[in-house]
Amino acid sequence: MHYELYYWPSNQGRGEFVRLALEEVGADYIDVGRVPEAEGGGVPALLKLINAPDLKTPPFAPPFLKAGDLIIGHTANILMYLGAHHALAPAEEAGRLWAHQLQLSVTDFAKEIHDTHHPVGAAFYYEDQKVEAKRYTENFLKLRVPKFMTYFENVIARNGGRHLVGTALSYVDLSMFQLLAGLRYAFPRVLARLDPSLPRLAALHDAVAKRPRIATYLASARRMPFDEKGVFRHYPELDD
Amino acid sequence: MHYELYYWPSNQGRGEFVRLALEEVGADYIDVGRVPEAEGGGVPALLKLINAPDLKTPPFAPPFLKAGDLIIGHTANILMYLGAHHALAPAEEAGRLWAHQLQLSVTDFAKEIHDTHHPVGAAFYYEDQKVEAKRYTENFLKLRVPKFMTYFENVIARNGGRHLVGTALSYVDLSMFQLLAGLRYAFPRVLARLDPSLPRLAALHDAVAKRPRIATYLASARRMPFDEKGVFRHYPELDD
Repeated sequence: MHYELYYWPSNQGRGEFVRLALEEVGADYIDVGRVPEAEGGGVPALLKLINAPDLKTPPFAPPFLKAGDLIIGHTANILMYLGAHHALAPAEEAGRLWAHQLQLSVTDFAKEIHDTHHPVGAAFYYEDQKVEAKRYTENFLKLRVPKFMTYFENVIARNGGRHLVGTALSYVDLSMFQLLAGLRYAFPRVLARLDPSLPRLAALHDAVAKRPRIATYLASARRMPFDEKGVFRHYPELDD
Repeated sequence: MHYELYYWPSNQGRGEFVRLALEEVGADYIDVGRVPEAEGGGVPALLKLINAPDLKTPPFAPPFLKAGDLIIGHTANILMYLGAHHALAPAEEAGRLWAHQLQLSVTDFAKEIHDTHHPVGAAFYYEDQKVEAKRYTENFLKLRVPKFMTYFENVIARNGGRHLVGTALSYVDLSMFQLLAGLRYAFPRVLARLDPSLPRLAALHDAVAKRPRIATYLASARRMPFDEKGVFRHYPELDD
């Protein structure tokens, strides 16, 4: 199967959770948003598909994945599809639902992370909601980060210590790598204090980074750096 | 199959999307949170399961559904499960993924609706974040509500005008009933202006309300009223 990933080209964003899965399975894919406009890619290609008037299954927003006739939207839904078709999740119903359940907690957490710099709305610049961002983030770092991270650490511990789900790598492990890497980038001081209490998450992060295809990907130009345009942004004034 | 729904008993909340699906299929279920504590229910029963130290698949938060040995968390994941087991969604892969994709947009929208009264965090009372709530909600009503509702209206139109997915009722239709009913409760002035542009959503709402089992449910004590404790809250100062 040849895949087309549709996501904004300007930053990692939510598309990165999908890219990590595509890279791990060695999928044949193109990242349409990053293909030059002159070659039919870029933002115009995304908007053309979103706004196609005859499309019966229009996506609400990127990311979405074109897989043959299917257009699959929402990060967790795309990962569930890839997990089923590339053995990147348990095959039986209980394991499939459990992996997806964890991924939906990742989705919720990613939204809360995004809102640290955009608590009032994505329509405003961070600079126009800095006061609200400070208040939001104080509560987020104090209550929400420990709650989510302790939960995921606990899930790994109860599953034998190496993976979140089952006995092999799943898309949830890949997303957890991205979550921890992103949080360490955005909130280095707070994460340095938390890290000792999350040994299994830290080990999982390192194990994922060393997988051959992931290591190749991370060293390539296809991996965009963390920056102040995506979900995980480092604003020193928020990191405390 | 006998089901146990676990959700906070104090308001409709996210559990209501699950209740509507259980009621529509005539499921054999108990709403554990609303069972008296003396009979083993209530909040202690929820917390006992969430905090069970030997549980390999601990839910992050309510709602979750116990179905035999399965404990299924996250509203959209529960609905995907019920859709597959009770013909409340298309059976083939494309239809299943599309229904779930729409439901995940409902999830995102419900979170944004919740944040109209809690933009800084659920740890603070609304009264302690009224200034931020006003600013958040102005943008939400101006940009986000029309974007989501026009999207759903458009999906119904492209699907023949009666349902969001396929040719029969799905769990997405049931959730759309709840969304529109809740928004009309929370923001009556804004929704009165929008309603004429959403004829298919309005018709779907009415059709769902008239389904025999849903009508029975809505008239029963099992249906809690909208109030200022759940996702959809009516604060007149925000409705403009």
